[in-house]
Amino acid sequence: MNAPVDTERPGQRRLTGPGRKTRDRIIETAAELMFHRGVGGTSIPDIQAAAGVSASQIYHYFGDKQGLVLAVIDYQTDTKLDQQRPLLDSLDSIEALREWCDRAADRQDAMGCAGGCEIGSLASELAETDPSARTDLAASFDRWEAPIRSGLARMQARGELSDSADVAALATALLAAIQGGMLLSQIRRSSTAYRQAVSVVIDRIESYVPRDTA
Amino acid sequence: MNAPVDTERPGQRRLTGPGRKTRDRIIETAAELMFHRGVGGTSIPDIQAAAGVSASQIYHYFGDKQGLVLAVIDYQTDTKLDQQRPLLDSLDSIEALREWCDRAADRQDAMGCAGGCEIGSLASELAETDPSARTDLAASFDRWEAPIRSGLARMQARGELSDSADVAALATALLAAIQGGMLLSQIRRSSTAYRQAVSVVIDRIESYVPRDTA
Repeated sequence: MNAPVDTERPGQRRLTGPGRKTRDRIIETAAELMFHRGVGGTSIPDIQAAAGVSASQIYHYFGDKQGLVLAVIDYQTDTKLDQQRPLLDSLDSIEALREWCDRAADRQDAMGCAGGCEIGSLASELAETDPSARTDLAASFDRWEAPIRSGLARMQARGELSDSADVAALATALLAAIQGGMLLSQIRRSSTAYRQAVSVVIDRIESYVPRDTA
Repeated sequence: MNAPVDTERPGQRRLTGPGRKTRDRIIETAAELMFHRGVGGTSIPDIQAAAGVSASQIYHYFGDKQGLVLAVIDYQTDTKLDQQRPLLDSLDSIEALREWCDRAADRQDAMGCAGGCEIGSLASELAETDPSARTDLAASFDRWEAPIRSGLARMQARGELSDSADVAALATALLAAIQGGMLLSQIRRSSTAYRQAVSVVIDRIESYVPRDTA
């Protein structure tokens, strides 16, 4: 497991010691259950039983299930971003982009392509039923898109991508290919769709590499 | 509403008249509720109330909720494919691909980018919890991918796409861009991500158009 991550929300008092550990354990347990069963398929009693806590502890730290869902979104975002550094901070070459996407495909293969994307699954489930979650998930996607875009921007600043490349649009397109590719791979139980989807977008990005630096 | 579509499953007896109408009404109602609330958020009593039928009628036609979910997957696939013909059968030019994707973006804008993709939302919700649904959704995605791939294959056969283009991979990439782009647009409540995602993939497809026919 990762080191505890700061998933406290504005206005929430900072916890230390046992309180912090209990809160982290509830979030990690809820994240795991929600990943496998969906938010709708995960009840507070399920989380109590799996985390070995009381309902009152859950309500104490999170107010209600919705509060816990928001903490899970932050946790999944922080954890997955942490796991993928430092690669995520060095997406400033075609090779680095391909390696990053290949590693994600290998992780999907290792799981039999089950599960899909932690963030994407939450997004699809909660988009229409929980406006606060939707806002948090939009911020989560922005946090994923930022390192892709800044890597492309650094390439462009160094003259390794043509000035005509719209790096923001290309970063969004790669994030969309990752999300759509993971969904197709999850449904087909094969990483081929994901690999093809990201390759096509990276090929397009590569087409902006000036001939003399290619 | 569309004309009733054939969503009967193998082994199911063919219905006529009032039975068929009742069955279709149950499916249409369930599809609408599940689109807005998710499968998990839609109960049999919800469907009874909205369709004005008894629980025993639902169980008579579908066996159980899972049977109804499979009928909804077929219905959504048939309906959406029907709605997009004849354009879907003529995706054999760069212009047709762009027009098809633009129309989908306009439909998203018209709905305030709420709702996402009917098939993609079912896929994300059911992939890990309902193996029969997953199999059906894999078939549904294949039915969406087929007209894209066959349009590209016709272009290639006519020499309008280079022989080096992997039309199967490009078709998968476009379907992934559609799915991922719709999810990002749904979360961001803006069709920009969808438009950018599909444009980047179509730009890549266009790069295979031989210079002398471009």
